[in-house]
Amino acid sequence: MIREMTKLDFEAFWPCFESVIKAQESYTFDPNMSLEMAYKLWCEMPLKAFVWVDGEQVLGSYYIKPNGMGPSDHICNCGYMVDVDARGKGVARQLCEHSQQIAIELGFQAMQFNAVVSSNEIAVKLWKKLGFKIVGTIPLAYRHGKLGYVDSYVMYKWLLT
Amino acid sequence: MIREMTKLDFEAFWPCFESVIKAQESYTFDPNMSLEMAYKLWCEMPLKAFVWVDGEQVLGSYYIKPNGMGPSDHICNCGYMVDVDARGKGVARQLCEHSQQIAIELGFQAMQFNAVVSSNEIAVKLWKKLGFKIVGTIPLAYRHGKLGYVDSYVMYKWLLT
Repeated sequence: MIREMTKLDFEAFWPCFESVIKAQESYTFDPNMSLEMAYKLWCEMPLKAFVWVDGEQVLGSYYIKPNGMGPSDHICNCGYMVDVDARGKGVARQLCEHSQQIAIELGFQAMQFNAVVSSNEIAVKLWKKLGFKIVGTIPLAYRHGKLGYVDSYVMYKWLLT
Repeated sequence: MIREMTKLDFEAFWPCFESVIKAQESYTFDPNMSLEMAYKLWCEMPLKAFVWVDGEQVLGSYYIKPNGMGPSDHICNCGYMVDVDARGKGVARQLCEHSQQIAIELGFQAMQFNAVVSSNEIAVKLWKKLGFKIVGTIPLAYRHGKLGYVDSYVMYKWLLT
């Protein structure tokens, strides 16, 4: 089930969130940031944040926000995170499909990911399957925890038909 | 002369800043934002902001900030603005060259512009001349005040030799 995220949900999700940012393999967040800072970035600064829950367990989450202001506020940006133990079950796909629907309801016309780490092949493959295209490659944009400097992709999808 | 920007400088520069954002030809800022909001975005949230001054007159300005956090905090982002009446005098070039020097002093390794409006040909040409490459094209990313939807470019330069 996907529903809006509460502060309690975020606290329940924090161990997963923290392990993801500490691994430094996918997110451009400070790996040492606090729960409060992460909550601010993931839930308070964006327009909305959602969770994928199975009973009491928070298995995944995403936020949605405008990617730019004024003349670019028709494009939104989302970030997705899934618990390591819940991967391969279609949680990320469901979150992304949900986010596209919410984006359209909120009046956005396109969705853009600014920094998909190129070595995160599972994510790149999934976003492509869901209709996103690589529209840019930023050289050496990410200091990967295991691989050193790797490129990042800008990915984009026009949402309206 | 280029020096760090004060609040007074920003107030002096505001008529220029406001006319630029109201034109909706180059910046992804809300065209109706207040001086206080603009000051926050241009001077307070970035790491630093500088002005190009001729005596009392503020003819141009730029900000510098990290483009990402954590594993991407080696790339900076800058924005430049030049008074309409001072264009063609090399102010933007000097600001950009200055910003690259400051970026290196601050420890950044690369510089990225996330949304160079494709129809802003003078800017695109200048950034190319100064060593930036187009590494991405975001389709219909900008609602231009005169031209309607136009693409935006992601431009990038590795600063270290």
